[in-house]
Amino acid sequence: METQQARLMDGTDLARRITETSAAAAEDIRRRAEVSPCLATVLVGEDPASVTYVRMKQARCAKAGIRSRHVPLPASVSTSGLVETVTALSEDPDVHGILLQHPVGAHIDERAAFEAIAPEKDVDGVTMHSFAAMGFGLPGFVSCTPGGIMRLLDEYDVDLTGKHAVVVGRSPILGKPVGMLLLGRDATVTYCHSRTVGLPAIVREADVLVAAVGRPRFINGADIKPGAVVIDAGYNPGNVGDVDFETARHRASLITPVPGGVGPMTIAVLLEQTVDAAARRLIRP
Amino acid sequence: METQQARLMDGTDLARRITETSAAAAEDIRRRAEVSPCLATVLVGEDPASVTYVRMKQARCAKAGIRSRHVPLPASVSTSGLVETVTALSEDPDVHGILLQHPVGAHIDERAAFEAIAPEKDVDGVTMHSFAAMGFGLPGFVSCTPGGIMRLLDEYDVDLTGKHAVVVGRSPILGKPVGMLLLGRDATVTYCHSRTVGLPAIVREADVLVAAVGRPRFINGADIKPGAVVIDAGYNPGNVGDVDFETARHRASLITPVPGGVGPMTIAVLLEQTVDAAARRLIRP
Repeated sequence: METQQARLMDGTDLARRITETSAAAAEDIRRRAEVSPCLATVLVGEDPASVTYVRMKQARCAKAGIRSRHVPLPASVSTSGLVETVTALSEDPDVHGILLQHPVGAHIDERAAFEAIAPEKDVDGVTMHSFAAMGFGLPGFVSCTPGGIMRLLDEYDVDLTGKHAVVVGRSPILGKPVGMLLLGRDATVTYCHSRTVGLPAIVREADVLVAAVGRPRFINGADIKPGAVVIDAGYNPGNVGDVDFETARHRASLITPVPGGVGPMTIAVLLEQTVDAAARRLIRP
Repeated sequence: METQQARLMDGTDLARRITETSAAAAEDIRRRAEVSPCLATVLVGEDPASVTYVRMKQARCAKAGIRSRHVPLPASVSTSGLVETVTALSEDPDVHGILLQHPVGAHIDERAAFEAIAPEKDVDGVTMHSFAAMGFGLPGFVSCTPGGIMRLLDEYDVDLTGKHAVVVGRSPILGKPVGMLLLGRDATVTYCHSRTVGLPAIVREADVLVAAVGRPRFINGADIKPGAVVIDAGYNPGNVGDVDFETARHRASLITPVPGGVGPMTIAVLLEQTVDAAARRLIRP
């Protein structure tokens, strides 16, 4: 039997195109309002992975004509100190979007810090307001990775209405919001997680599978429904996703590679939402 | 073959006990703070069903020693007029909880009106903040019917961990939040709705079924997994639920009757949260 191979969902290319559009929009804002969109990046401590992520985001901002204002804080900062910093950025008219890099340290009330981000500057989509907006289908910013996943699905013309979407993982910035976005697009949505009993049988029902658990090759290709759309939002050490790509690609109709699938979309959506936040403030207030 | 009959989940009795506890707590507040808990009820127009609901809530408040302050508004009130009224109640220190009876009329931005309710007075659990709190497992008020459903499940010792809970319906105050609460209790959660394809097959997988569609006898007993726990949150004309009770009771292990199941729980949770809001303000500020 000849095995089919899934078509790859190219996040690198789509992210590049979205960022080009964002750069043009940022240029338009600069021309009309004489100020560039500005993303504040708040980094607590010096965790190497976090440092790298923030640098990457700043570099991408720069390429897109978005200023970034870096706000490094010592690892010892208190919750109230962090909340104060973020609140000041929320109130600063020169800042259009705020990114608080997490994790922020175990001694800090991360939720309190996130909630200090004004909804209209929550371009990373981490506040309770943004989550509820995603849940209720109201205007607002989306969490970046879920937003990127939805863009990929649209780019590849995946019809979601009535389809069974299975989300494996339930984190507040990935699993939960992507499920809400899929539900808002009329998919039937199942949330699975570490306590789920009988996961393979549920995965086999998925027309659209979103893997967001952070465990390398956790989803076996043999469990994927033939023709399913497979979104791998995992990014584990060694460039390995949550889905066993080599087995999955012979069952899926569309699949995101790791790297080059979901990953690049996250920053693209962050930049796009930063420009949009600036536009709302500066051009169409 | 002898057919089993499901045990009934008695919402009338549990609601009565919760309300007795709330009444005692209200009395305790009155004794210690020299003021009774107060629920403001805002009613737009004179829709007969809404008038009845509000009166019922006021009567139950009175029995539990909770003051209610009724705020009737003409059907012609504008969004800004309604928002202004609700905002004033949010700022009034004498009001501890706010109930905005919906629907509020098609010409009004209902979401804007709901969002004028301060989170600490949102005893009906309708704000974006409350939804996100339910979604993230954070402290806050729950939507009353979902909260009542969870209390019923606990009362009957339903273990949710790893169980497959299927929620049919996705409204912002019922289906969506109850799914989030079930997910927070480690159930695997599937959201179904009007666009779901192959609903009966999904219903057959449910260890716990929550029917919240508002269509009489929409769920056929033949589709219920033997031994499932069936929560019927529907209440259709003629005292008919969303589940065909007579066929379902022979398959389920536990089932809520209509009336007398979920229905009474909604007001019980409303009263309980009102007393709790007052206690937070007056006794443990």
